[in-house]
Amino acid sequence: METAVKLTDSNTPLSTEELRKINAYWRAANYLSVGQIYLMDNPLLKQPLTLEHIKPRLLGHWGTTPGLNFIYAHFNRVIKAQNLSVIYITGPGHGGPGLVANTWLEGTYSEIYPNVAQNEAGMKKLFKQFSFPGGIPSHCAPETPGSIHEGGELGYAVSHAYGAVFDNPDLIACCVVGDGEAETGPLATAWHSNKFLNPIHDGAVLPILHLNGYKIANPTVFARISHEELENLFIGYGYKPYFVEGSDPEVMHQQMAATIDIVISEIKTIQREARSNGAAARPRWPMIILRTPKGWTGPKEVDGEKTEDYWRSHQVPFAEMTTKPEHIKLLEQWMKHYKPEELFDDDGVLVQELTELAPKGVYRMGANPHANGGILLKNLKMPDFRNYAVDVSKPGSVLGESTRVMGYLLRDVMQHNKDTRNFRVMGPDETKSNRLAALFEVTGRSWMAEILPEDDHLAADGRVMEILSEHTCQGWLEGYLLTGRHGFFSCYEAFIHIIDSMFNQHAKWLKVSKEIPWRQPIASLNYLLTSHVWRQDHNGFSHQDPGFIDHVVNKKADIIRVYLPPDANTLLYITDKCLRSRDFINVIVAGKQPQPQWLDMDAAIKHATAGVGIWAWASNDQETEPDVVMACAGDVPTLETLAAVGLLHQHVPDLKIRVINVVNLMTLQPQEEHPHGLSDKDFDSLFTTDKPIIFAYHGYPWLIHRLTYRRTNHKNLHVRGYKEEGTTSTPFDMVVLNDLDRFHLVADVIDRVPKLSRTGAYVKQFIRDKLIEHREYITTYGKDMPEITNWKWPGA
Amino acid sequence: METAVKLTDSNTPLSTEELRKINAYWRAANYLSVGQIYLMDNPLLKQPLTLEHIKPRLLGHWGTTPGLNFIYAHFNRVIKAQNLSVIYITGPGHGGPGLVANTWLEGTYSEIYPNVAQNEAGMKKLFKQFSFPGGIPSHCAPETPGSIHEGGELGYAVSHAYGAVFDNPDLIACCVVGDGEAETGPLATAWHSNKFLNPIHDGAVLPILHLNGYKIANPTVFARISHEELENLFIGYGYKPYFVEGSDPEVMHQQMAATIDIVISEIKTIQREARSNGAAARPRWPMIILRTPKGWTGPKEVDGEKTEDYWRSHQVPFAEMTTKPEHIKLLEQWMKHYKPEELFDDDGVLVQELTELAPKGVYRMGANPHANGGILLKNLKMPDFRNYAVDVSKPGSVLGESTRVMGYLLRDVMQHNKDTRNFRVMGPDETKSNRLAALFEVTGRSWMAEILPEDDHLAADGRVMEILSEHTCQGWLEGYLLTGRHGFFSCYEAFIHIIDSMFNQHAKWLKVSKEIPWRQPIASLNYLLTSHVWRQDHNGFSHQDPGFIDHVVNKKADIIRVYLPPDANTLLYITDKCLRSRDFINVIVAGKQPQPQWLDMDAAIKHATAGVGIWAWASNDQETEPDVVMACAGDVPTLETLAAVGLLHQHVPDLKIRVINVVNLMTLQPQEEHPHGLSDKDFDSLFTTDKPIIFAYHGYPWLIHRLTYRRTNHKNLHVRGYKEEGTTSTPFDMVVLNDLDRFHLVADVIDRVPKLSRTGAYVKQFIRDKLIEHREYITTYGKDMPEITNWKWPGA
Repeated sequence: METAVKLTDSNTPLSTEELRKINAYWRAANYLSVGQIYLMDNPLLKQPLTLEHIKPRLLGHWGTTPGLNFIYAHFNRVIKAQNLSVIYITGPGHGGPGLVANTWLEGTYSEIYPNVAQNEAGMKKLFKQFSFPGGIPSHCAPETPGSIHEGGELGYAVSHAYGAVFDNPDLIACCVVGDGEAETGPLATAWHSNKFLNPIHDGAVLPILHLNGYKIANPTVFARISHEELENLFIGYGYKPYFVEGSDPEVMHQQMAATIDIVISEIKTIQREARSNGAAARPRWPMIILRTPKGWTGPKEVDGEKTEDYWRSHQVPFAEMTTKPEHIKLLEQWMKHYKPEELFDDDGVLVQELTELAPKGVYRMGANPHANGGILLKNLKMPDFRNYAVDVSKPGSVLGESTRVMGYLLRDVMQHNKDTRNFRVMGPDETKSNRLAALFEVTGRSWMAEILPEDDHLAADGRVMEILSEHTCQGWLEGYLLTGRHGFFSCYEAFIHIIDSMFNQHAKWLKVSKEIPWRQPIASLNYLLTSHVWRQDHNGFSHQDPGFIDHVVNKKADIIRVYLPPDANTLLYITDKCLRSRDFINVIVAGKQPQPQWLDMDAAIKHATAGVGIWAWASNDQETEPDVVMACAGDVPTLETLAAVGLLHQHVPDLKIRVINVVNLMTLQPQEEHPHGLSDKDFDSLFTTDKPIIFAYHGYPWLIHRLTYRRTNHKNLHVRGYKEEGTTSTPFDMVVLNDLDRFHLVADVIDRVPKLSRTGAYVKQFIRDKLIEHREYITTYGKDMPEITNWKWPGA
Repeated sequence: METAVKLTDSNTPLSTEELRKINAYWRAANYLSVGQIYLMDNPLLKQPLTLEHIKPRLLGHWGTTPGLNFIYAHFNRVIKAQNLSVIYITGPGHGGPGLVANTWLEGTYSEIYPNVAQNEAGMKKLFKQFSFPGGIPSHCAPETPGSIHEGGELGYAVSHAYGAVFDNPDLIACCVVGDGEAETGPLATAWHSNKFLNPIHDGAVLPILHLNGYKIANPTVFARISHEELENLFIGYGYKPYFVEGSDPEVMHQQMAATIDIVISEIKTIQREARSNGAAARPRWPMIILRTPKGWTGPKEVDGEKTEDYWRSHQVPFAEMTTKPEHIKLLEQWMKHYKPEELFDDDGVLVQELTELAPKGVYRMGANPHANGGILLKNLKMPDFRNYAVDVSKPGSVLGESTRVMGYLLRDVMQHNKDTRNFRVMGPDETKSNRLAALFEVTGRSWMAEILPEDDHLAADGRVMEILSEHTCQGWLEGYLLTGRHGFFSCYEAFIHIIDSMFNQHAKWLKVSKEIPWRQPIASLNYLLTSHVWRQDHNGFSHQDPGFIDHVVNKKADIIRVYLPPDANTLLYITDKCLRSRDFINVIVAGKQPQPQWLDMDAAIKHATAGVGIWAWASNDQETEPDVVMACAGDVPTLETLAAVGLLHQHVPDLKIRVINVVNLMTLQPQEEHPHGLSDKDFDSLFTTDKPIIFAYHGYPWLIHRLTYRRTNHKNLHVRGYKEEGTTSTPFDMVVLNDLDRFHLVADVIDRVPKLSRTGAYVKQFIRDKLIEHREYITTYGKDMPEITNWKWPGA
């Protein structure tokens, strides 16, 4: 068995001079990091340090920062030596001060933020702004140059890193993983991403597991298992781990330099061999396990208590400056031991011999264009979505599987952009189940593990990414989009909640990015939620949850879009729109089962462009005000509404019905709340100001109330939707169990339209009989009554 | 290095007769599994099989089932031989037919469901009910005897198993993990649970990684990495893996029997040694890697396409019975090759020699009481929560940290129940940060990895469980509760979204369990969400999300409870109430920072019992109708509301204000929607029918609208809350950025109360000045103005 590697002390690639300089650079970054956490004035410590120079609220995380600075310095060295393109993924995002310090040292920070210049005045601003009102956050954030990864929640560093290097053959993602983050589930499975990375057309991830031993108040699991277990674990994950462990800077610099030289050389060898012989076998990629003290170079003890190499270094190692004046002295000693006078000249400018250590231009990690992906973003070459139109001569006259039709469009998007390699489709083993299998006509499933002869469309260069981890799919896609490419994620509706929190973080990233002038727009994150709540009759209750929409609409209106196309042609239009959009999160909910098709392509474009509209062909209120408005959003609710309309036409033909279909859910919100919101005037003219509205909705009914409570006619709005009822049954029974079926909708109309008070009783008896018949039929035969499944809209 | 184990063929513990019988038992389970998927009549195949005997909709998952049946049969053997207490956790929950078949064979199924008797008529019902309307789901579910784990979402088998065996020293959880599930993040980190399992007072988990090679449409990662990597990975995770691999039943039965004998013996040895010498060192626990063909013993080929040992076996291996009559023949051959006539007598009763293979009574895995934990549940011994009361002589007169006070109560709950070992507290490294550190006065943090001298309250028998994985905390707690114990989960509010989907599954489990008479009530799942949105000023935007409440209230009203105690004494009362409750999910949101305390204990009990009420001492409408209602829910909104009331009293003393505080959020819903909902009459008398209501709410404001849109005075309701604004700033600035601060609330009142139209202009100018002063102060000094932080309620 191949074992892990630890270099001997004799491997010393740095000359004495180089060692001195790299250590000085590291000291400079550490000095600037401590300064950011503590100081608001006197940045070069020219005067004796006093309380007035120190921030009144001390915030930030020191513990992980010196390690991050150490890695940064060593990557500067190898980038410069070999002209590498590297982005730095800071898993321990709380180490924000380190990344800010380094990008300031290399010059990118001041280029982007000229008011924070590379001089004493700039250094003062750099210090003061950190974790200060009106300043910058304590984590790596959109504000941080060179970052595509916000620290904070933890768990996504490795999947982001892989997403970034897919289809970027010359890019290396230096991905630092904290040993706290390593305990999270999403991170624990993301290591397996190496089974999906192709050394020919993808770049490389160099994971650096940074063991500094402690979380907020506990040791970490990874720091307290044996070296043997640690080594086995990462060999088991498919890596070749190199250990760099210690605390003596001189020894550690040599070890780190030697190790990085070796791993970069291994990466290049792997890539060269794969690219020259074209054989994409899965190599054992190198990784580094770096063990350093938490709060390395910080105070060993504070008030007699162990601090360096302990959890007390996690955030601010000591505070209480007002009550303990000796702490001010301690801070001054700590900062001075980095010897700022050797590092910066009198104007606060980094001395020349250190300036030279950083790479230049876009080689600087803070300036790598992949970390501001919008600069590199190319529009997708889009086929005309009209070419895939389902021929609908008459509403309801044909059946179609919406997502299968969408699959044809996605297939050709994939084909048109194959050469530019900037489009991927993600899904947790569900691409085929979700009827998007047309993609496999032009590409395979990405797979670098073993392939057997009987395998189905597995391919080393496949562009459909399937792993049974929604977290990894989401992380890959975010990394891919943030580095300027395009993608699509299809998922079972219920299980997209698995990534609720990742969605939050991405939505927040987009919101802040939009406020930062130098961040260029990126492609939207597009979800297709299918295998949705109404067709989980075979899987049952545990697979039913339409609440992701509720979760999404809590985020800023200028970020999120929710579409519920009722048929294939509207889905085609919406898909095209989403793939062309920027800086949004688009949620599309559409079924995969055969369903009646309603709109021909011209009508679909018109309808979906408006986002909401009257379906005149299903309404009979043309000459007059309606007696009732029947609204619907979602494919199954649309079918049930139209079926209910059919029953009503048949039984109470003089009832005037207006049918409204909603594709773009955000149209329901007030105009002031969402850019797509209807004006009150338009809303009133559609939904009337005083007629009953029976609204059949795909998800939890109260969401419709939450969107419309300010509308004039809200008091007459009655919403049906999913109310957590359901089990293993038939498709139609699912809607019956939630009172969303045609029969209940008819009853709802009768209960609310005064003119039906007399004729209604008869119709309600008919409905009761039908529901009893339905119940008897399904429990006897196990399937829906033929008249339900073969139902046609009466107008068809 | 200790390497993995694969037994040689010479290790054959089963006699020929035993081998024949165990194989026959397995055939019986397989026969019954296929029967459930396909048949609705002719269960013993006494007549030639025809279309009428076959269900019209074929649902269910065959692929994993024969493997599950194989394991079950072998556990029956070892349980019987050694009188073990074992529960069976079915990670591949889609293998529902297997568990139903086995519990029917052992008799538990018919005891619980007498209409599904152990005879031909019962077998017919057993078959028909499966995945049939009105029948049972296709997964393991609450309906399944012996199960605490619903299949479906995947990811939680291992954490559930560990949760089940904590504090159950004699229990073994046989935990089958599918190789699909093994790709999920939560599962990938849950393997590390062995660092928290104490062999002295906990039971054992025997993980069985079942490699059957395929997911829905793809191979699995774990089946396509090298044997060497697989072995290393699990050694790295701290296990000693035993491999059982093959497809020949005779060989496989011997290997499995020999392996199980060895691993059970190893488990017993580990436990005996630890328990006799009292030294709780972390052992290398055994595990099994079982590699069998997917759809083992099913049809090799269907229509010329590979089926056994391939993804085509995942669900129903073949269907199209109407159009392909040869499929009926194939099904009959398949079922008959199990030779049902040797397994069941003419009445469908399992033959005597096979009946004897199953354990008896509670030793049957379907009847293990731990899997119906409510039977074993003992009430917690509760100290009187009044003993921890904060002395509040006058509202607002003292500061207190609510969660710290709660920590004293939790400490004593822990202490009182230490001997019964049925209470644990979970949290992702945040117990101390969340100010619950009093717990460490009586117990430690559970830790079985390496302990260093400087470590802080780590202990092998610690009862506070901390791992930086919300998924694992949640999974452990669910397993612990489902087996009849009590617990508590404290978490940062924003990051509880990580387990949104796990919450869904547990809520659904509870909903269904309540409808099953033989499932006994279990202790509620209690969340404390602290470090909440309003005090993330130091962490910033990425740590701000109060939306878990929105997520929770989408679930069934009889399952969920949401509490927002405004101070320590109400929190004490609510905590007591939650710890005594059953079958709920209780969400408590409370801050950890010093805040004014409002209610003495008597007032707190009265207020929190009602859940909502007027705070007369803060109101001045006693003699009359108010001009405005100022409502609040949550600790920070309560403070801001009272501060606004103070300002209003000062500036417009003749304004009549009614202050309402909401502790129990569900009181706002209509009575028909939630058992805690106020009647319309009560709501109207509190909130008036026509006065403006300014509602300061902890979370997203629209949730209040969604809960109250049917109330009479909803049109006058104006809600302030979190609207996704925030950054690194000061605590007070966080509320300012979201318009929830005292100044904006005052402005809201002025804008809505007609009688203030004249005096209001002056007050609004005052407010504008204050907000400018605030902005200048914080950007200069980096902290809140003293008058904000030192603010006292004017009545105090």
